Amino acid sequence: MAKQYSEKHQIPYYECDTTQFLKIPTLVKMLIKISGAQSEILGVSDEYMASLGLGWIILQHDIEIKRLPKAGEQITLTTEAESYNKFFCYRHFWIHDEKGEECAFMSTTFAVMDMKERKMGSVDEEIIAPFESEKIKRIKRGEKIYPIETSMGEKEYTVRYYDIDLNKHVNNAVYLDWVIDSLDAKFLMSHTPKKIAIKFNKEVLYGDKVFSQFELDEEAKVSKHGIVSKGELSAEANIYWHSKD
Amino acid sequence: MAKQYSEKHQIPYYECDTTQFLKIPTLVKMLIKISGAQSEILGVSDEYMASLGLGWIILQHDIEIKRLPKAGEQITLTTEAESYNKFFCYRHFWIHDEKGEECAFMSTTFAVMDMKERKMGSVDEEIIAPFESEKIKRIKRGEKIYPIETSMGEKEYTVRYYDIDLNKHVNNAVYLDWVIDSLDAKFLMSHTPKKIAIKFNKEVLYGDKVFSQFELDEEAKVSKHGIVSKGELSAEANIYWHSKD
Repeated sequence: MAKQYSEKHQIPYYECDTTQFLKIPTLVKMLIKISGAQSEILGVSDEYMASLGLGWIILQHDIEIKRLPKAGEQITLTTEAESYNKFFCYRHFWIHDEKGEECAFMSTTFAVMDMKERKMGSVDEEIIAPFESEKIKRIKRGEKIYPIETSMGEKEYTVRYYDIDLNKHVNNAVYLDWVIDSLDAKFLMSHTPKKIAIKFNKEVLYGDKVFSQFELDEEAKVSKHGIVSKGELSAEANIYWHSKD
Repeated sequence: MAKQYSEKHQIPYYECDTTQFLKIPTLVKMLIKISGAQSEILGVSDEYMASLGLGWIILQHDIEIKRLPKAGEQITLTTEAESYNKFFCYRHFWIHDEKGEECAFMSTTFAVMDMKERKMGSVDEEIIAPFESEKIKRIKRGEKIYPIETSMGEKEYTVRYYDIDLNKHVNNAVYLDWVIDSLDAKFLMSHTPKKIAIKFNKEVLYGDKVFSQFELDEEAKVSKHGIVSKGELSAEANIYWHSKD
């Protein structure tokens, strides 16, 4: 069993949308934050990785949301580096409320990047051993993401200074900002996501223009998304929605 | 002496920019959050205000920054409703680091809004008494804000779903996002603000287009900013900078 790590967090209003529910990009940011905290505690911090010329990159998030927490709630964030193979590391994350009920679960696929060569490296024992992850042979596939067939609209964004993280590229959670914002406020105020899958194909840099395209099936309550930059698909996402009560 | 209220906060990486310093809009959000927390504790929460048909609106922030805190730091946020007169309430905010050294100070001018009439109301005893603020006769002026003389550039933004707060208009901190982002990343990575004054003139709503204009004097290290929406000046700001070491 992989080592687990938890942190408590009280949700301030500014991490919530106009209806007082936790913003989706922030949900992802706070989970990724605790994986960094666990790595640091186990002696394999991002700084240590960087000293080896390595860094973690995120390939896909699969998120299941039972109930989005609200402003003021005290939640517990938990993570474990569940398993790994030669090229990938699979992390699990949970959000629980004060009663111990599960609010959300996220499964994330990480890879190791050789920062100098800018190509994927292998997951060496040295960096993974402290997590006590299960070593597996097979490649686990994330949720299948269906591409947009006919775009129903797009919004244009320019990457902002504050979108760029320590790695000098757009932080993975920012893509969800663009994805969610492509939909209309009227729809967003009356619906809440129950499942989100997002796959990252290509990094986006400061000043780049991006187009957030969407296709929404209001009947089936599914939206498909594409983030296009410099003519290439930088990220793809599917979101399964339900109506708010 | 007005009642003081404090909260501790550990800064996650995602509240910081690419150089690991606290984002300016988040600095403002976390301070405004604790004024809400104090109001709630003293029995005059936003919900109570709303039940009287009233709400607080922010007219100006004057921020002095001695040292911007960094990711991972544990800071203490403190506030007091320092004084008030018939129409305005003046709040003070501080950020201190773990050693008790002052990192930042903010003075904010609030007014009471009659939410039905959409016009300014008066600061009644009923809503201000619990704070034990000093009642004063004079109108205190915030820092003078010098207008742009010749715009050196502008960036265009469209108000996003996540920019809108509980009051269904753009949250005051979002204007600082637009203000800061109008400047180039190269300048922002090598400079840090020591003084910021921002004045809010007109609310901006979901879907509105805004233009963030700036004039930068690199010699004097002063930038002047205007946020223009529907042909009107929605906010104005001045920032005094110094070079990072």
